[in-house]
Amino acid sequence: MSVYAAPIARLIEELEKLPGIGHKTAQRLAFHILNMPVEKVERLVKSISDAKSKTKYCSICGNLTDSDVCSLCSSNNRDDSLICVVQDARDVAAMERIKEYKGLYHVLHGAISPMEGIGPDDIRIKELLIRLQNKDVKEVIIATNPNIEGEATAMYISKLLKPLGIKTTRIAHGVPVGGDLEYADEVTLAKALEGRREI
Amino acid sequence: MSVYAAPIARLIEELEKLPGIGHKTAQRLAFHILNMPVEKVERLVKSISDAKSKTKYCSICGNLTDSDVCSLCSSNNRDDSLICVVQDARDVAAMERIKEYKGLYHVLHGAISPMEGIGPDDIRIKELLIRLQNKDVKEVIIATNPNIEGEATAMYISKLLKPLGIKTTRIAHGVPVGGDLEYADEVTLAKALEGRREI
Repeated sequence: MSVYAAPIARLIEELEKLPGIGHKTAQRLAFHILNMPVEKVERLVKSISDAKSKTKYCSICGNLTDSDVCSLCSSNNRDDSLICVVQDARDVAAMERIKEYKGLYHVLHGAISPMEGIGPDDIRIKELLIRLQNKDVKEVIIATNPNIEGEATAMYISKLLKPLGIKTTRIAHGVPVGGDLEYADEVTLAKALEGRREI
Repeated sequence: MSVYAAPIARLIEELEKLPGIGHKTAQRLAFHILNMPVEKVERLVKSISDAKSKTKYCSICGNLTDSDVCSLCSSNNRDDSLICVVQDARDVAAMERIKEYKGLYHVLHGAISPMEGIGPDDIRIKELLIRLQNKDVKEVIIATNPNIEGEATAMYISKLLKPLGIKTTRIAHGVPVGGDLEYADEVTLAKALEGRREI
């Protein structure tokens, strides 16, 4: 006999499957949900179902959207001669939050990773090339993650784009703003030195 | 224009309302859910709806259950001359986990707290007295939380039960097992000294 009634045990089990939610947190969340008014529980459930059923990938850039073409790709206020390549839809949100970038995006849905068996054909590189053929793009900014997979993907894409004569750039590596030089790792510090600019 | 499509923004907003879930965690969970296979999302949603709709409070002890009387109250293997009074259904689960206690429970659904306007009539004390009148109970163990509200509730109940001639006990205060004496606060240490026993 479990300590909890079956529906509660099942809820805890489902919550535990979410990232960063351990057994204790799952228990706390489950009891919180059980104590919530029924309308609020219905709203939570609906928001999960709706988010899953109503969002899809933008047919142009691959960003998450609730329409066929995302609000960024369909906007008239964006510079369509600029494409920023990112790994994930979350990265689009991160870039948008800085409110500096006015170009478009291309979401790869992953990065090249031989260790995990993810090759160039498994991510949306082909779709990027098709976009570049049809549109007059001046610059492709590669903003994949600053780790092995992200760097490998950046290198691969830059080699593909070079023959096409499109300017390809990579976001800068360096010490994070507000960080402490003492705590920066050697590789980051070396990259920061290498990327130094005149002031 | 928000950074996220509307259904995603709504999901993040709903997740943020849960305890211990900040904005960043809500974002991470939302994107995780969007990446989950649709069957798994359905299972998660169903587990939340089911837990809410199928569980209710046991008509005897007030514990959360999926039947009218909870599995503990309806069990033949429990000692019904012993009632452990706790604040919350979570506390029943905590007590059950130690696998030592074989009596029944009484869940108060709160503690007396003048600060929050919760009086003796707002928690299930009346129901406890009714249970004690009808059943031959030898001992009531008060296991409310070791804080001001829990202590006040314990004192209140013990004063009510004294005239009824029922043995009323309070769980021991003391230093936690595995803890370090150095880090124990003065009040706990004083209680531990006061509650010392011969070995």
